[in-house]
Amino acid sequence: MTAVPVHAADQKTATEAAAVPRIAPNAVQFRLENGLDVVVIPDRRAPVVTHMIWYRVGAADEVTGQSGIAHFLEHLMFKGTTAHPDGAFSERISEIGGEENAFTSADYTAYFQRVAKEHLGEMMAFEADRMTNLVLSDAVVIPERDVVLEERRQRIENDPGSLLSEALSATLYKNHPYGRPVIGWQHEISALDRRTALDFYNRYYTPNNALLVVAGDVGPDEVRALAEKTYGRITARPEAVRAPRPAEPPMVGPHTLTVRDEKVREPTLQRAFITPSSTTADSGGAEALSVLADIIGGGSTSRFYDGLVRGKGLATYAGAYYQSSGVDATRFVIYGVPKPGISLTDLEAEMERVIADLVENGVNEEELERAKSSVVAQAIYSQDSQQSLARIVGSALTNGSSLDKVQSWPERIQAVTAEQVSQAAAEFLKPEKSVTGYLKPIVKKAEQDGKS
Amino acid sequence: MTAVPVHAADQKTATEAAAVPRIAPNAVQFRLENGLDVVVIPDRRAPVVTHMIWYRVGAADEVTGQSGIAHFLEHLMFKGTTAHPDGAFSERISEIGGEENAFTSADYTAYFQRVAKEHLGEMMAFEADRMTNLVLSDAVVIPERDVVLEERRQRIENDPGSLLSEALSATLYKNHPYGRPVIGWQHEISALDRRTALDFYNRYYTPNNALLVVAGDVGPDEVRALAEKTYGRITARPEAVRAPRPAEPPMVGPHTLTVRDEKVREPTLQRAFITPSSTTADSGGAEALSVLADIIGGGSTSRFYDGLVRGKGLATYAGAYYQSSGVDATRFVIYGVPKPGISLTDLEAEMERVIADLVENGVNEEELERAKSSVVAQAIYSQDSQQSLARIVGSALTNGSSLDKVQSWPERIQAVTAEQVSQAAAEFLKPEKSVTGYLKPIVKKAEQDGKS
Repeated sequence: MTAVPVHAADQKTATEAAAVPRIAPNAVQFRLENGLDVVVIPDRRAPVVTHMIWYRVGAADEVTGQSGIAHFLEHLMFKGTTAHPDGAFSERISEIGGEENAFTSADYTAYFQRVAKEHLGEMMAFEADRMTNLVLSDAVVIPERDVVLEERRQRIENDPGSLLSEALSATLYKNHPYGRPVIGWQHEISALDRRTALDFYNRYYTPNNALLVVAGDVGPDEVRALAEKTYGRITARPEAVRAPRPAEPPMVGPHTLTVRDEKVREPTLQRAFITPSSTTADSGGAEALSVLADIIGGGSTSRFYDGLVRGKGLATYAGAYYQSSGVDATRFVIYGVPKPGISLTDLEAEMERVIADLVENGVNEEELERAKSSVVAQAIYSQDSQQSLARIVGSALTNGSSLDKVQSWPERIQAVTAEQVSQAAAEFLKPEKSVTGYLKPIVKKAEQDGKS
Repeated sequence: MTAVPVHAADQKTATEAAAVPRIAPNAVQFRLENGLDVVVIPDRRAPVVTHMIWYRVGAADEVTGQSGIAHFLEHLMFKGTTAHPDGAFSERISEIGGEENAFTSADYTAYFQRVAKEHLGEMMAFEADRMTNLVLSDAVVIPERDVVLEERRQRIENDPGSLLSEALSATLYKNHPYGRPVIGWQHEISALDRRTALDFYNRYYTPNNALLVVAGDVGPDEVRALAEKTYGRITARPEAVRAPRPAEPPMVGPHTLTVRDEKVREPTLQRAFITPSSTTADSGGAEALSVLADIIGGGSTSRFYDGLVRGKGLATYAGAYYQSSGVDATRFVIYGVPKPGISLTDLEAEMERVIADLVENGVNEEELERAKSSVVAQAIYSQDSQQSLARIVGSALTNGSSLDKVQSWPERIQAVTAEQVSQAAAEFLKPEKSVTGYLKPIVKKAEQDGKS
């Protein structure tokens, strides 16, 4: 975006010479004797700490037929222990003016609190207690299952877009458990029970399968001392390691699926391609895919915006994203909403054409540099929130990545070449290896052309 | 097909009054003390017996990630025991002029021999021996795995139609293991080994999980005596029962998939709908679906033939079938090949229209009676081969059906009403709950319209 044209090779040398910022540069990692990994990210801006415990287990580790158990257990972790009965932990957090939450993905389950720094040890004591002493009775399990079923009803069953995304994942992943919704299939959630939850808990919730991330106004020595007094007392179960997941067979051709619903206001399409994740990719692969997503559909300077929204006026919006984090192969997604009067088919053909053009003619240095700056900027900005930084680190490490890879992300993005970007597009964005989902309004009888 | 019009109700009464034939009317069923189920089907036409042992385990019972193990074990069952080393059983069958084979489905695995009646006891001794004394070494397992991989390469990988069918199943069944190919995914077959095969064998190959079917020139008493001396000596393992399989979530909308390959000569389409099997259906449900399949696409008097092949001249052929046998919900499939110059889209729309018309206007008594006669006739004819009759009984019983249901199939078909048929079509053949697969030739660049 400099006004003076710079020769590409020169610019690259200049970039490499410049001090590329690192993410969480002062983060420190160590491991307790019982196998608990710890990352401390000092952040002295306020006397606050974010305390997160991450388990290397998620929906993709569930036994077939028990979908939703990882997420259900996340709910049940709030149900208390002998020392701290149902609600005691949350009440205490509220009492000291803190915040808490939890989240489950296909690859991890995490719990966190944000509190004033002097309460860190207490949070660790609570969290260590429920890592190993969870008490579950049918009296709490059964009503909580109804809560989860209601959550699914509201978030998925009542939302055609979510139903489409869920079916799209299940079509994209025919064998790998990423095809399964994290919240679980409704009929399988209904059958989850106390025993299943406790088995899952007993197998996976142990220090050697966990990661402690503490970000905030605290140093590594202090965190280590507190962690040893709490988590450090728990005995490890060395066998608590998740099994490798079944791999995908090759995709034999393009797939489509269509959801029509009266709640849909405007037609949309999304197309997904399976790609390596930052854990499974060859060196530079995830970085090239990240830059590619930005070039194709990352904002108002992207090719989709330029060609489809502004240019030909086919789309209200069109974009792309690459899901880099995952233990196993993840996805690259393009999506678009046609302008009124434009068909999904026409928009889709034009999106395909934009990608084919990129594959054939490559990317130019100007858009490459702009995309790299944008991807780096997003990473840099994400550090602004203590919680988001802790999440980036926790998610990466439970996905099989390393602290160094998180830290060096900006410099690895800077190293991406134009050739890597067009190669990634050629290798992974093949129409014949895609699943395309269409969300359509229900057309009234008179307007229909006879096909449903 | 009578020349004199008959009032429907009268005709039905007449049919019920007539002696509707039963399938294998003289078959006898009993159980040995160790839980082995036995069915004897006397057939005195020749001094020959068909001896089949069926295990209630198939590809749908495999652990995720080990697809193909049921079929691989079927191969390995020919590798010998201590008493009868590799090849000894097959050599003996060949020596006495017999035949043998084996087959694996999603729901069962079966082994059979056809020999002169005096060798029945010997076959039982061999088969009982390998039910419990199989010996496997890497020296036989590893080369046999290459045999299976080659089988897959020839039957699936080199056949675009098989690749399409495989992906279609995996799209139709998002959660249930019927979505998995019986032969296994190539990458998972490659990882199968001696230990996995033996674990599967040790878990499922036991008399209380097996069914012996003997058809031929022999009576129940003789079979019982021989079975007790051979199979009867094996100790049952009561826990060897397969677990229920995970159920499907509801289908949210129509899916398509396309395979293009240079080996494809003419475009074809197939559309599959999930339906109850004869095991899971309500009373009369599987019977109505069987009659429906015949009416829609069962031959030269079917609606597809009449409307699409002969009538509008859109199709070279078009048909339908219903897969009635299955432990869990199975499928109804329609398929067609357009005439040159007709697009798959046009043929598909017309196939949809034919079904919509049937749903809306019902079926007439004439086509109903013709279809029922045809379905009954097929069942009656299938008895002509001793082996096919034994397979029908074995497959039904390992799928959770009963001997009585097999025997009464013709009378249950006769009881199907026109209303049941159109109701089945309305309930199960919804376009929005279907997966459609297209097989297409690779079109040369110049002929293409720009879309791949």
